[in-house]
Amino acid sequence: MKALVVNALGHGFNLEDIEIAAPMGREVLIDVQASGLCHTDLLFATHDIVPMPAVLGHEVSGIVAEIGADVNQFRVGDHVVGSLAQSCGGCARCQTGRSFQCQHPEATLRRPTDAPRLSRHGVGLFQGLGLGGFAERVRCHWSWALPLPEALDSKSAGPLFCGGLTVFSPIVEFDIRPTDRVGVVGIGGLGHMALKFLHAWGCDVTAFTSSASKADEARGFGAHHVVASNDAKALKQIAGTLDVILVTVNVTLNWNAMLAALAPRGRLHFVGAVLEPVPVPAFALIGGRKSVSGSPLGSPATAATMLEFCARHAISPQVEMFPMSRINDALDHLRAGKARYRVVLENDFR
Amino acid sequence: MKALVVNALGHGFNLEDIEIAAPMGREVLIDVQASGLCHTDLLFATHDIVPMPAVLGHEVSGIVAEIGADVNQFRVGDHVVGSLAQSCGGCARCQTGRSFQCQHPEATLRRPTDAPRLSRHGVGLFQGLGLGGFAERVRCHWSWALPLPEALDSKSAGPLFCGGLTVFSPIVEFDIRPTDRVGVVGIGGLGHMALKFLHAWGCDVTAFTSSASKADEARGFGAHHVVASNDAKALKQIAGTLDVILVTVNVTLNWNAMLAALAPRGRLHFVGAVLEPVPVPAFALIGGRKSVSGSPLGSPATAATMLEFCARHAISPQVEMFPMSRINDALDHLRAGKARYRVVLENDFR
Repeated sequence: MKALVVNALGHGFNLEDIEIAAPMGREVLIDVQASGLCHTDLLFATHDIVPMPAVLGHEVSGIVAEIGADVNQFRVGDHVVGSLAQSCGGCARCQTGRSFQCQHPEATLRRPTDAPRLSRHGVGLFQGLGLGGFAERVRCHWSWALPLPEALDSKSAGPLFCGGLTVFSPIVEFDIRPTDRVGVVGIGGLGHMALKFLHAWGCDVTAFTSSASKADEARGFGAHHVVASNDAKALKQIAGTLDVILVTVNVTLNWNAMLAALAPRGRLHFVGAVLEPVPVPAFALIGGRKSVSGSPLGSPATAATMLEFCARHAISPQVEMFPMSRINDALDHLRAGKARYRVVLENDFR
Repeated sequence: MKALVVNALGHGFNLEDIEIAAPMGREVLIDVQASGLCHTDLLFATHDIVPMPAVLGHEVSGIVAEIGADVNQFRVGDHVVGSLAQSCGGCARCQTGRSFQCQHPEATLRRPTDAPRLSRHGVGLFQGLGLGGFAERVRCHWSWALPLPEALDSKSAGPLFCGGLTVFSPIVEFDIRPTDRVGVVGIGGLGHMALKFLHAWGCDVTAFTSSASKADEARGFGAHHVVASNDAKALKQIAGTLDVILVTVNVTLNWNAMLAALAPRGRLHFVGAVLEPVPVPAFALIGGRKSVSGSPLGSPATAATMLEFCARHAISPQVEMFPMSRINDALDHLRAGKARYRVVLENDFR
């Protein structure tokens, strides 16, 4: 099959012919329709984090092409979305709902007949690193393929699984309630989904953005209010009002003003890996019983809940489609901050 | 009555004769037996925070001496503990269980016949600033006097209400569970109570202290393990193990090592007003879904729960008694860091 392989850092993606074995046991083989391009892919393609060579891509939507002998959950032709290939099911993390952080990802689907020249992580990266969706096909354990509700468009559904789930998960896990006032910092791949989710959740939603051009679109995604994140006066005006602020950016902002914008018992929650440490004065937490927290992706169970919620509320990512063969152009587009709001690569190899 | 008045910052406490009016309506008048000396009193006596002159002291144990006409909850002679004088009962904070942060503390028990030369805050400071316990008597709304269980010693019970409640409250409010591994940073007035509470709560308890001399006592208070908070190697050994770390100090420590010591979903919780901002890297929170948080005192309802818990488990503060007339010596003792572990001033004016 055709696959886009990262052979060395900073050299982009290379179109190659590689092998992928047929599914065995509880595995399913998926024909990739489209794969979302995440900032994590950009990170992995340019920083020494995952073993090379590698096939990236962890926001896959596709159609089940073959199933292993022990798969009862799917039939050939089913629409599915997926992000990872497998988790061990037995480690403490798997057993406490964090299979996306499985401690034994080495027990993967890698088999000798799979593209021998790829790293031992093979087709599909693990440890939360992705399914290998920038290819014609992927193979995963059935539990990591989720049925796509009919109401959702399969081409644009992939980004739900990383960008969407990353912001949906804290809404569920930290008990954000429809009566809460919630701020979303950064209106990008994650942030625009957060606005849609929180609007449908029933919250009062404030978008924080430093880009005036995004204000109207933020309202379109569901924001009731838009505040310029670099406007000290505007931040002061909303002091003490927000129950949760969800940070999806990775740049440093005026965190003191953000903490002050929280209502008593408020939470400043990071899903964006802000690179510089956030200076948190203890007294800013104590009086108002405030929290600063963070969270990673989310479990397939939470993802299933999210898909159902999306179907009920007609929520889908706002995407820009590129042919998968033009992945390097798409990467440049993403790197330039031009993505509105998630780039999706459509399989054009067939 | 005799009262110890702070007339100016940094000049200690002055013994004076002042008036206190009889209780009206729902008020009770309490004969002070003893009052705990808190770091907050030291802070207020030396920093420009509360209006002067003022009577401090907010860890009062005593005996009901008189009751207002509408008080049905107490009889003269009842043993009670108290910290504040009154809350409005009607503001959003009072109505959401935070009467200790009442927004209208001006509606106090202050009456013209009360010590006219004291500030408008009068006998008994409000806004969480204290009842005015460094005096022969205090007066408060009945809801701020709590019946002292018979099993508890009244002389040493006062410190439960601030030092004790400040660490008991997050145990309740943040759902610390008997199966949790909990660290306590700083073994002082608050920390030693935290060790006692957490031990009785059923937790695995680790004391962090920079003072080797406190290690054995920490074990006596209930710590299963003692770790030197300045021992980088020891901190590394416990990486990923603690569900909660309760910080009762106000000095800067190796916060990165403390965050690393947390297990997934762990919480670094501040009740000590650490003066320098705590640098929190977002990535240190995201992967493990960790939190950094803080909390203030606690409500009278939580205090009542605490008193019952203390009675059942024979928990009391470890105190050093000083005669109240020697408050300035006691203050020096506290300032020198010599208190083991809470200084209590016994009323010797009678």
